[in-house]
Amino acid sequence: MISQKIQQAVSILNEQQIDMWLIFVRETSSTPDPMLDLLLGTHCTWASAFILTSTGKKIALVGSLDRQNIIDHAPYKVIDYVGSIKDLLISTMKEIDPARIAINTSQNDVMADGLTHGMYEILCEYLKDTPYVQRFESSESLVAALRGRKVHAELEAIKSAIKETLDIFEKVSKYVKVGMTEKQVAGFIVDQMEKKGLSPAWDPEQCPAVFTGPNSAGAHAGPTDRVIESGHIMNIDFGVRKNGYVSDLQRTWYFMKPDEIRAPEEVIRGFETIRDAIRNAAAALKPGIEGWTIDHIARQFIVDAGYEEFQHGLGHQVGRKAHDGSALLCPRWDRYKKLPFLKVEAGQVYTLEPRLTVEGAGIATIEEIVVVKGEGVQFLSDPQQELWVIKS
Amino acid sequence: MISQKIQQAVSILNEQQIDMWLIFVRETSSTPDPMLDLLLGTHCTWASAFILTSTGKKIALVGSLDRQNIIDHAPYKVIDYVGSIKDLLISTMKEIDPARIAINTSQNDVMADGLTHGMYEILCEYLKDTPYVQRFESSESLVAALRGRKVHAELEAIKSAIKETLDIFEKVSKYVKVGMTEKQVAGFIVDQMEKKGLSPAWDPEQCPAVFTGPNSAGAHAGPTDRVIESGHIMNIDFGVRKNGYVSDLQRTWYFMKPDEIRAPEEVIRGFETIRDAIRNAAAALKPGIEGWTIDHIARQFIVDAGYEEFQHGLGHQVGRKAHDGSALLCPRWDRYKKLPFLKVEAGQVYTLEPRLTVEGAGIATIEEIVVVKGEGVQFLSDPQQELWVIKS
Repeated sequence: MISQKIQQAVSILNEQQIDMWLIFVRETSSTPDPMLDLLLGTHCTWASAFILTSTGKKIALVGSLDRQNIIDHAPYKVIDYVGSIKDLLISTMKEIDPARIAINTSQNDVMADGLTHGMYEILCEYLKDTPYVQRFESSESLVAALRGRKVHAELEAIKSAIKETLDIFEKVSKYVKVGMTEKQVAGFIVDQMEKKGLSPAWDPEQCPAVFTGPNSAGAHAGPTDRVIESGHIMNIDFGVRKNGYVSDLQRTWYFMKPDEIRAPEEVIRGFETIRDAIRNAAAALKPGIEGWTIDHIARQFIVDAGYEEFQHGLGHQVGRKAHDGSALLCPRWDRYKKLPFLKVEAGQVYTLEPRLTVEGAGIATIEEIVVVKGEGVQFLSDPQQELWVIKS
Repeated sequence: MISQKIQQAVSILNEQQIDMWLIFVRETSSTPDPMLDLLLGTHCTWASAFILTSTGKKIALVGSLDRQNIIDHAPYKVIDYVGSIKDLLISTMKEIDPARIAINTSQNDVMADGLTHGMYEILCEYLKDTPYVQRFESSESLVAALRGRKVHAELEAIKSAIKETLDIFEKVSKYVKVGMTEKQVAGFIVDQMEKKGLSPAWDPEQCPAVFTGPNSAGAHAGPTDRVIESGHIMNIDFGVRKNGYVSDLQRTWYFMKPDEIRAPEEVIRGFETIRDAIRNAAAALKPGIEGWTIDHIARQFIVDAGYEEFQHGLGHQVGRKAHDGSALLCPRWDRYKKLPFLKVEAGQVYTLEPRLTVEGAGIATIEEIVVVKGEGVQFLSDPQQELWVIKS
């Protein structure tokens, strides 16, 4: 996969007429560059430069003791050093003499912002007597294309992770009962995941995240000792990593009271509002459109139905990371910088995950995953059509 | 532990007369700041600022959906936002009005260089109409003190991780035989680690690292299908994580030929040169000394014995990370920047890990761990005194 993505990066360099992509890092186990998961697949210790050129050169300048490990992981021509990378870097740059040089710095996109400020200063200092510092530009557009355009094997890995996750959700429906705690449900999910030999898609403290009732955090928090009560909603945010790629899905359950024969009207209305917001957003999602317009469709639909708008974006890309890619389906808020204005491309894989609060019951959420095709999207997850109801 | 380290950070701010420590991050699962393992203990999603002041203020400015998770992990006063952190950041800075502000940027120390260049630009842009950008300075000295000075509970956790590792090494001595592959030995170690419910101290691909014979990579690479032969050396680099803290140790074995009754003279001489280099370096290591001088003692001892010098530093600190802390026992090479000139302090925990090649047999390495006390060091590992010999 690394070789395929490196090859794809070379194509994208050509397409965007950028001569060189220079990734400058050190001690990546402490400060990883988010792009090295696709372009290297391992860590390095001392100051290292990974260089791709539009002419197809793939060069790694690394500390001597990292040499073998880099060779074992990715098809770079490895040149190693002992005392300082400086002279090696200068001579390599001069030999290639690139006119446009992309470096991983970006105010907009965390995925294109792996270069630390200290390393940026070192790079400028090393190259100060060359013309190359003046030729630096952000790798944003390279990163967006490379992370976004999934190759076949990446798509298959994501599909496989989704399938495993949906299978576990089905088992949860058979297992879960009023009186269990969030932690119990989470523990059951972890057991199922481990039986499958899989690992969580994000921080294990919050994956799975299980939220029940009207007082839960609702997002980005771990399961608690809160007990599931009848009349409450439970929503779960969960994904697995399989063959390096992840899923990220949410489902909503309702626990009936002893005297109920169906979920209350307001719970069903909340669930169906979310479901239909996703349907409407998915129907409009296609190449060439700016992400914020898709977010707006779902957001407005929910507000029009009388609910408060959700305090996050409608959807993000998935890949090796749970929050992957550059283009986002999100509002034009400062915190998202320019990402809502990036254009949707074929090959991208997005979540769709609006949310709303059903007063007194809990949070209704669904998170589906779609892949963008030439004319529109295809759901990779089997969408939740009905509220999942658990009898007392 | 997080609360203790935050309290220690406030003391260090006072000691160094710095008014504020400002840590500015986003999506820390992709671009973590290395200091948040000690000062937060979880991840955050949107642009977030963690602020500590010499007056004891602990403030976290975070996206609204991260609020609960931050509260669950660390004792910050959490203030959340939805659209943009900008106004909140400006008003918080104005309220505190610090004269000296440390930010995590450093050319010298990866641990103090968690601020990406893109985030640095955003920070400067947000605060451009305030006096605060001019008051920024590197957090290097804060980071060095906070990571270096282990509190009691940290030291106990490290000791415990070391004990588990030495126990596994003992089991390896009983298990390993000529004819096994490096991967088999590594697999045995992983099994032992999992039986203890522990995880590896660094990248599991290279932890344990098992090297045998004269043709192995020798460092920073994973185990291979290479078969252990008689007449060869095996060295293992391995550590575990226990209660969040790690060990990092190396040991050397020799596999006797059928007709040998002891290891060859040159293998023993290689091993003992390493052992004595560590003894000499440890004897000189004490507070106030610059790290490079300790490296020099071991390096010169090995060179004087007729071997090539090793291509890395003699030792690094350990803690939550296998390569932890700031001060290094390393040569004055450009790749280590100013770290070799930092002064050793009491409370720091260092590895001592020289290496040399025994021609035709393999690499001799030992890695011990010591804690620096007022007058000198105390070994936390039970030092390897003799070459461990395996009979055919």
